[in-house]
Amino acid sequence: MDKASYGSGGLIAAFATPLAESALAVIRCSGGGSIKEAARFFSRPEKLASAAGHSAVHGWIMSGGEKIDEVLVTVYRAPSSYTGEESLDVSCHGGIAAARAVMKVLRKAGFREALPGEFTFRAFMSGKLDLTRAESVMEMVSAKTDAGLSGAVSRLSGALENEIAGIREKLVEVLAGTEIYLDYSEDEFFPEGRETSAQNPPVQEDRLPEIHLAQEVLARLRSLSASYDRERLYHDGVLAVIAGRPNAGKSSLFNRLIGEDRAIVADVPGTTRDWIEAWVSIDGIPVRLVDTAGLAGGSPDPVEKAGVERSRELMAEADIVLYVIDGTRGAAPDDHAFLDGGGRGIRLAVWNKADAPLCRETPDGFFPASAKTGTGVRELCAAAAAALEKKAGGGKEKTGPGTARQKDLIDAAAKSLEEALKLAESGEALDLIAPFLRESADALGEITGDVSSADILEKMFSKFCVGK
Amino acid sequence: MDKASYGSGGLIAAFATPLAESALAVIRCSGGGSIKEAARFFSRPEKLASAAGHSAVHGWIMSGGEKIDEVLVTVYRAPSSYTGEESLDVSCHGGIAAARAVMKVLRKAGFREALPGEFTFRAFMSGKLDLTRAESVMEMVSAKTDAGLSGAVSRLSGALENEIAGIREKLVEVLAGTEIYLDYSEDEFFPEGRETSAQNPPVQEDRLPEIHLAQEVLARLRSLSASYDRERLYHDGVLAVIAGRPNAGKSSLFNRLIGEDRAIVADVPGTTRDWIEAWVSIDGIPVRLVDTAGLAGGSPDPVEKAGVERSRELMAEADIVLYVIDGTRGAAPDDHAFLDGGGRGIRLAVWNKADAPLCRETPDGFFPASAKTGTGVRELCAAAAAALEKKAGGGKEKTGPGTARQKDLIDAAAKSLEEALKLAESGEALDLIAPFLRESADALGEITGDVSSADILEKMFSKFCVGK
Repeated sequence: MDKASYGSGGLIAAFATPLAESALAVIRCSGGGSIKEAARFFSRPEKLASAAGHSAVHGWIMSGGEKIDEVLVTVYRAPSSYTGEESLDVSCHGGIAAARAVMKVLRKAGFREALPGEFTFRAFMSGKLDLTRAESVMEMVSAKTDAGLSGAVSRLSGALENEIAGIREKLVEVLAGTEIYLDYSEDEFFPEGRETSAQNPPVQEDRLPEIHLAQEVLARLRSLSASYDRERLYHDGVLAVIAGRPNAGKSSLFNRLIGEDRAIVADVPGTTRDWIEAWVSIDGIPVRLVDTAGLAGGSPDPVEKAGVERSRELMAEADIVLYVIDGTRGAAPDDHAFLDGGGRGIRLAVWNKADAPLCRETPDGFFPASAKTGTGVRELCAAAAAALEKKAGGGKEKTGPGTARQKDLIDAAAKSLEEALKLAESGEALDLIAPFLRESADALGEITGDVSSADILEKMFSKFCVGK
Repeated sequence: MDKASYGSGGLIAAFATPLAESALAVIRCSGGGSIKEAARFFSRPEKLASAAGHSAVHGWIMSGGEKIDEVLVTVYRAPSSYTGEESLDVSCHGGIAAARAVMKVLRKAGFREALPGEFTFRAFMSGKLDLTRAESVMEMVSAKTDAGLSGAVSRLSGALENEIAGIREKLVEVLAGTEIYLDYSEDEFFPEGRETSAQNPPVQEDRLPEIHLAQEVLARLRSLSASYDRERLYHDGVLAVIAGRPNAGKSSLFNRLIGEDRAIVADVPGTTRDWIEAWVSIDGIPVRLVDTAGLAGGSPDPVEKAGVERSRELMAEADIVLYVIDGTRGAAPDDHAFLDGGGRGIRLAVWNKADAPLCRETPDGFFPASAKTGTGVRELCAAAAAALEKKAGGGKEKTGPGTARQKDLIDAAAKSLEEALKLAESGEALDLIAPFLRESADALGEITGDVSSADILEKMFSKFCVGK
């Protein structure tokens, strides 16, 4: 049998929930005839086979007369399902062995393991959702904070799809009513169902008639593109490193920041590590917060030396460094050297122990705070978030592009349109300009999937998680 | 507000799937009025509020006019639900932020976080399942292999419940038809619905009339109890340690055993560790397989010394040690010293590299094998499984007790019955014997939950996972 590929059809099944000890595990199944095939391994075959769409049937998964697991099977009839095909969700006991045992039976029933993203791929192919909404499904899964979620929710609702379709339509209007337009078939330019050409007989012109409209479109594209970094900031998050000399209060600040906002994930994947880290939300920005070893040099101990070296590396990688100084001792030349040293990340200097009676006056440019009592920590977070926002650029779109693919295509559309405008402004004829406009429209069509190739789809969906 | 406790009622909700990036997350909700309360935060409130039991409704979780997540809500109407109450399963996007955002809305809707096992507790209280089946739910979740699963499935189907009820009924028969029986109300002895006493008027006797029946019951109880270790073997699994001198082929054997049977779990929880381990299935027995550092003594390096020390500790803890000897070099006095040394665990001596031309003849009591080619490894596994089975005792019941609670109560029932029989055999009168018989029947009643106290229930259900 050939290796399965997107579009190879058939019955598919996948674990839709993580394989770990838990109350429930859900195995998602899809494909024409899937209900009938699954029913052969169910304790109440007729009941399942005849179940109405969107109904849940209780029973046992059976194999060779043996009970395998007690399950609830929710049945979906085509086209009212996620994939648009006949589908089932099998909700079984959430143990590793239990879920695997049910999956084994489903294999016997003729289901093959789904490829990553194959359910969403099928949903796209059935016209259930466009590519921006398909991609937002994975954004929903990987969002770490509510703020990161809201962009994804908005794209899932179709906000970007509608935005891009609207822009593309304007771009088509730019060309509509010109003789050049007539050289292209209606289908190529017009979104399905639009029939303006018949009602608006074309005006014969050989210069770009709607330059201001094209300029407007270009401005929209640039604005959307500029919002991307901000979307990524709230979705992907940043690396924040807490640094400073020993006993400045680094670990206290780390614990305070974890306490302020409950840590996003209990465990950071990966194992041995010489530093402590946790994901926290700082004003909605997911922050991978790392507490480093002290920066004291001069220790002869090789283990300590290596720790200091790693701290420096992490600080160099960091998007933002919270540099902690003990306000009761003041800043040493080393501290100033670091703070003045530049580097790619933002640097915030924290004047810690600001509440202590012996604390010196906070110098300009330092943030007075007390990791111990929490004083000033809220302001520190706000300043950190503001600095990160500022660095991400001023994108203010409610719904910008959520993936690099979307952003690159918006940029490509903008570039072609820019080229077209340049030619138009120097008075070139439409037949020279039109191909660039067409390129621009095609790039936009690729964003939503109106224009797409098998390769692009496969590349995109293979980044999904299994079960989606 | 008081701290929630089992039995405090109200609307409860819990993550039923692990909180991690995945296709789906399911939040389970239960309680009278839960559907109406959840509907207030749903995009199609009337549709959800009026949905039929066992139907799935598609829509959005809403909060303050904002879309939170696109979900499928499966509705269950009392009493046809897991808990016996009105319930909902909310299937949302499987991201940490997405699932948490939905949970936050459910809190606003009046749901409190469920205690561990609270859904199953409610199911028990509604008479949906007895305690043996309730406990099997958690066994299903923690089962590691198919063999470990099958006992749990059988208890989930009610096999142990029926067995215990049957035994208890026999015990009651032992007393039925005696004057002592009349001192107890029918309810106390007879399982609900049984009305034999009316049809079989009691015969007046003052000696235990059915000694052979009591002996039969005792034999059944002992046989059930004896099966417990075997049930635990297949459910909990064992610690197996691979040991031997450096370069004997320990790591090769480790890899071969992982390869033979796909590792049960990819990652062993916990972090820093100086040894490598994985859960594998050896003939259906879940085995935590540990590859240790070589046992060569005499190294001056403190790190290596510590490694050897830890290896010795693991070997002392192990249920079984697979001791690997390089067959081309033969056994050294050190090897013999270890193998003859005794200890609590089973020791199997592996004569490795048995395929190599230079391999010496396998001595008696050693298992010839080649970790490299796989020769003899199947036989080694079979021998290990047989030795572990033998050590677990000869329990051959298809369905034995699955938890320590069940086993302890079976033992208590047996002990009281033994006492009763001893008295009966020395010709004591029924009024002396009867209390022991009653104790025995009560212990059996506690297994299924016919006799139970709030304390016992709370203790039991608090061991469950959240969402069950």
